[in-house]
Amino acid sequence: MSEHKKILMVICDGMGDRPCESLDGMTPLQRAEAPFMDSLAKNGMSGLMYTVGVGRVPGSDTAHLALLGYDPETTYTGRGPFEAMGAGLEVRPGDVAFRCNFATVDNLGVVLDRRAGRIHEGTEELAKAIDGMRIEDVQVIFKPGVEHRATLLLRGPGLSSHITDADPHADGVKMNHVAATKPDGEKTARILNIFGQKAMAALMKSPVNKGKPRPANAILARGGGAVPHIQLFSERYKMKCAAVVGITLVKGICNFAGLEPIHVKGATGGADTDYDAKAMAAAKALDTHDFVLLHYKAPDLFGHDDNPDGKVKAIEKIDAALGKAFKGREDVVIALTADHSTPCSVKDHSSDPVPLVVSAPWLRKDRVECFDEISAGEGALGTVQGKDLLALLIGCANRAEKFGA
Amino acid sequence: MSEHKKILMVICDGMGDRPCESLDGMTPLQRAEAPFMDSLAKNGMSGLMYTVGVGRVPGSDTAHLALLGYDPETTYTGRGPFEAMGAGLEVRPGDVAFRCNFATVDNLGVVLDRRAGRIHEGTEELAKAIDGMRIEDVQVIFKPGVEHRATLLLRGPGLSSHITDADPHADGVKMNHVAATKPDGEKTARILNIFGQKAMAALMKSPVNKGKPRPANAILARGGGAVPHIQLFSERYKMKCAAVVGITLVKGICNFAGLEPIHVKGATGGADTDYDAKAMAAAKALDTHDFVLLHYKAPDLFGHDDNPDGKVKAIEKIDAALGKAFKGREDVVIALTADHSTPCSVKDHSSDPVPLVVSAPWLRKDRVECFDEISAGEGALGTVQGKDLLALLIGCANRAEKFGA
Repeated sequence: MSEHKKILMVICDGMGDRPCESLDGMTPLQRAEAPFMDSLAKNGMSGLMYTVGVGRVPGSDTAHLALLGYDPETTYTGRGPFEAMGAGLEVRPGDVAFRCNFATVDNLGVVLDRRAGRIHEGTEELAKAIDGMRIEDVQVIFKPGVEHRATLLLRGPGLSSHITDADPHADGVKMNHVAATKPDGEKTARILNIFGQKAMAALMKSPVNKGKPRPANAILARGGGAVPHIQLFSERYKMKCAAVVGITLVKGICNFAGLEPIHVKGATGGADTDYDAKAMAAAKALDTHDFVLLHYKAPDLFGHDDNPDGKVKAIEKIDAALGKAFKGREDVVIALTADHSTPCSVKDHSSDPVPLVVSAPWLRKDRVECFDEISAGEGALGTVQGKDLLALLIGCANRAEKFGA
Repeated sequence: MSEHKKILMVICDGMGDRPCESLDGMTPLQRAEAPFMDSLAKNGMSGLMYTVGVGRVPGSDTAHLALLGYDPETTYTGRGPFEAMGAGLEVRPGDVAFRCNFATVDNLGVVLDRRAGRIHEGTEELAKAIDGMRIEDVQVIFKPGVEHRATLLLRGPGLSSHITDADPHADGVKMNHVAATKPDGEKTARILNIFGQKAMAALMKSPVNKGKPRPANAILARGGGAVPHIQLFSERYKMKCAAVVGITLVKGICNFAGLEPIHVKGATGGADTDYDAKAMAAAKALDTHDFVLLHYKAPDLFGHDDNPDGKVKAIEKIDAALGKAFKGREDVVIALTADHSTPCSVKDHSSDPVPLVVSAPWLRKDRVECFDEISAGEGALGTVQGKDLLALLIGCANRAEKFGA
């Protein structure tokens, strides 16, 4: 048996793209000056990856579950639990969690403002009026997030994620009456409707709302999901694992998997993050851990904004940061990829596969010389399914067990 | 979300091949002058597709089911239902359908001529003597087809496709006694044996057979299949769909899927078809529909006949027709492929994967420059499974829903 090696997985959110007119038909990754990424391609193996399956448009949540080796078909029922965990709530298998907004509704239940005037003060106090309620045999756990955002956790017997959203996802229409989408969702739907009424009653009375033109007098819940039973990453793969991640959702998924969160000063989860500090933190974590996930959000944001130039610059910043932190590092399998494509021309996630490169001094090298969506298709890894990536990397790190004898 | 685009799927039946000696080791597709197909490769993404799985030889029926997104493993039990539907019979889930021949047998049941002297007159009247029979609680529906061919549909409770053929598939041997291949097939086997006797008795009496040296005095049934429950294409994908198809079997599958049949004057389902008229009809259908399937049978026929030159010419005719109809069309995802390979050297279907190209102005382009079995293997699509093709195209047309958030 060869020595166990370490693994770095770099995920550049939404980095895959399609040809951009303003870049003369190139993708941002083709246009970017990214010498470190190209050196990985030159010294490694490239491929194209369908993170959640051919022809499927990945969500950030389903894609990251897959990249961490959890089949989203069996572990994913909604985004709520991952946001809740990313927000620092203790979630347990059986809980059902929701993303929420503080909102302003009129006395007929019509939503006047889904963000309650983008409220950013007093939400701690408002949340206290709701947190800890009991409805039938269900406990309500409610925590405020950034600005108008919040997280709701229902804990009790017989809960289900098979319900519709209370959030109508638009202003000027009535809050939705929550309904079951399968028979086992009926109790949860009833609880959530009662919660909506009780929350409204409690918020109305709060001094925080007094005299406000846009009082935060209602809670709109969405993205209900059941907390899955998943095996911790460390137990499953016998590796000591860490994550350098800025955004709540991906933090939550990493927490679920049991990756130790590495806090980095200046990591914002945005385009203004400290790219270098994150890469250096990941490099340092690799001295003491077997597996480190490093996540950059910026490319996705520029894709959603149809800003090819911004995307090119974000990729160049990531490249520079990775180069400084990892150039010459010879003890690590480096995998660089994206969770999904966010083409500027689509301004949303797309089903286009993402480029993938895997490089380590002891591994095979193919003839691909650049890291981009087109070149990657000519590489030795061929077409990879997202849920196979981790197994592939564990094999590359000489950590896979023999099947048979 | 980006604008929904339209999809054209061109299927050239049996187009894939192996090196042909008489073409200096080239495949017919390599030899053919096919500038439009090559332009798709230049401006699109290529790959190789296993329509029903690695190492499996596709039937025309199973392959087309897969290409339309229906897993043949779960929807296919036999060819009968698709032929029946293509022949214009109304079939219902639960029915079991068979392809039949009018045949000549002696009074010991030995088949003298499986095609009853290639009978081509009087089959309407012969069929009337059989159609509408009742056997136990089963209704017999029987329709004549072209020449000696016919379709048998059994309708009633407890029918199954788990039975052997009555057709011995050879002259000079006795008609098969139909047997169940699984216990649930016993009733159907019994019904079919009784049907064989009753049909013989009815045909013997028919004036059509009087004085004929090769009387059509028996029905040989084969390819029994249960009519599957499948979701209509339009409901499943929310697209308005049409098909330009000449041959009965593929028509039947398209009918099953709910594709609107476009009738084209001069479309024969043979090598003598009006190639241009079919392509123009498909182009016109795309003005009013979201998805159009265009099927050409000719390459398969030349493959079965070991006629490489004929196959080259058929491909060139298809190419010219496609070029006239679709050159410069910018609002459509064009996918060009085959349902299976029919190598001239094999004179039958083979398990060799088929070339696939997918092209649209907004999609990525790889570096492949020609459309053929060898070049396609170097393309960005890598290896594609037939049952994933439709999902892939729906993603390319910006019509896929997000999995997750």
